[in-house]
Amino acid sequence: RGDDKKILCVGLVCLDIINVVDQYPEEDTDSRCLSQHWQRGGNASNSCTVLSLLGASCAFMGSLSTGPVADFIMADFALRSVDVSAVVWQVKGQTPCACCVVCPSSGSRTVVLSDTNLPDVTADDFSKVDLHQFKWIHWEGRNAEEQVKMIQQVEMFNRMLPQQQRITISVEIEKTREPLYQLFPHGDVVFVSKDVARHFGFQSAEAALRGLYHRVKQGAVLVCAWAEKGADALGPDSVIVHSDAFPPESLVDTLGAGDTFNAAVIYTLSNGGSLQDALTFGCRVAGRKCGFHGYDSISKHFADE
Amino acid sequence: RGDDKKILCVGLVCLDIINVVDQYPEEDTDSRCLSQHWQRGGNASNSCTVLSLLGASCAFMGSLSTGPVADFIMADFALRSVDVSAVVWQVKGQTPCACCVVCPSSGSRTVVLSDTNLPDVTADDFSKVDLHQFKWIHWEGRNAEEQVKMIQQVEMFNRMLPQQQRITISVEIEKTREPLYQLFPHGDVVFVSKDVARHFGFQSAEAALRGLYHRVKQGAVLVCAWAEKGADALGPDSVIVHSDAFPPESLVDTLGAGDTFNAAVIYTLSNGGSLQDALTFGCRVAGRKCGFHGYDSISKHFADE
Repeated sequence: RGDDKKILCVGLVCLDIINVVDQYPEEDTDSRCLSQHWQRGGNASNSCTVLSLLGASCAFMGSLSTGPVADFIMADFALRSVDVSAVVWQVKGQTPCACCVVCPSSGSRTVVLSDTNLPDVTADDFSKVDLHQFKWIHWEGRNAEEQVKMIQQVEMFNRMLPQQQRITISVEIEKTREPLYQLFPHGDVVFVSKDVARHFGFQSAEAALRGLYHRVKQGAVLVCAWAEKGADALGPDSVIVHSDAFPPESLVDTLGAGDTFNAAVIYTLSNGGSLQDALTFGCRVAGRKCGFHGYDSISKHFADE
Repeated sequence: RGDDKKILCVGLVCLDIINVVDQYPEEDTDSRCLSQHWQRGGNASNSCTVLSLLGASCAFMGSLSTGPVADFIMADFALRSVDVSAVVWQVKGQTPCACCVVCPSSGSRTVVLSDTNLPDVTADDFSKVDLHQFKWIHWEGRNAEEQVKMIQQVEMFNRMLPQQQRITISVEIEKTREPLYQLFPHGDVVFVSKDVARHFGFQSAEAALRGLYHRVKQGAVLVCAWAEKGADALGPDSVIVHSDAFPPESLVDTLGAGDTFNAAVIYTLSNGGSLQDALTFGCRVAGRKCGFHGYDSISKHFADE
């Protein structure tokens, strides 16, 4: 399948302002942080970063509103060579910005996100995208009802094409919000989070996969990562595939580890790798990523290996 | 004295990111804020905003570092017609940014400021400014040792001029940091905060003025605002001048109330008003300001009245 074709990730992009503090601030005090840095955040946006660092051509689709936050985000997308031609510029609302307080001594990360008034990408927006340029489209579950309509557009598009030219569809169900669960039957690959799995009452990745597999469509792969326990996946052959985690020597930055895992799995599968290869690579890249700040060093360790 | 001349404020400018929440976030949680807005902050920077809204020509001097934060700040200065030709562009360090969590239900405001690595304006930077354009220069106490050298440059400049053309010097001592106290003998007008007054053991503005007046230079005016108790001032005639506070019907936003008070006092005195007029106007504008968000409505209520 066309190596010139791109991977599209649809979802949130926001600005993460990371404040590193020596202790979590008490209410109604003034304090100084040890350091502060700004980074582009959002699950789909982070996965684009990692895909790009691994050497894949990729594109991002999500909403932005003009202003200094969007300027910062667009400059960072450019730095990562992420295609932004599908970005939807909203005329009302503000680009989301998260103030994160990271406290290494206690290991905590506290996030206050403003994500209230920027409209999400709609099926109508999506209908304007030329699907021929993509080999894989990944949705971060958000406005699920609209996202299902987008996926149906891709299914329609796929029906007109021979098998090997079809677009693979993946979805991520990370948050425990009922409307997101309608995405289960719509992915060729479905990522379900530990959080959602536990919300359904499952105490392990394997139990979650066995218990949730009836929700996915025929032939689909269900993937569930479980932090330091590694990750498992289940396909139509009913065999559970597992990879252990690859913890770094010391935990430095776990922000975006899940988005890294998803990207590395998609990268491997979109290049024709096996499910086992994809899981193992996902765990290796995500584990390694937790050993350094941000994402830059991913390319050094993994690109095109 | 030249009505074409400007008021210069020297000090901090930063970006304040205001997150309004329904309750203060617990450590290690994710939450969404009710609203978020960005505003230019910093004491000297806020005082420029208020001076400008009151109808005074004013200029800001402080450090900035190029990037999206500085872009936002410069655009906001332009919106307020604050002269920024004296801004010092630093080649290392980042423009400070404060993440503020405001919780109306508990009345708290929690501030985490990154203000670590941007060099302050120096006496050498200040020596490059043409002093002829100013009738008043106000310093927010920060790098006091350098600021004393700047003030000495103004004193030298003043000595060559007839009385009515001299630049009035004011300083603000807001933080309880020992090095700042060397600024006391260097202002024609010295603003000392309630916080500093209490740090010296005084329980009222009047007690603070009587107890700290020996630190100011001969002929100077010492001013101390005491929140809902109003403000007092003491000049060379040993008479305490007082104004009650003017609380708004409902407290909406106290951020920058002190900077508003200082600006309104400077505005009145620089236009030849009496100390009593200045104190009363300071309390009126600052009190009114606490009844609305931000500063915009100041011009509606007070400009050129």
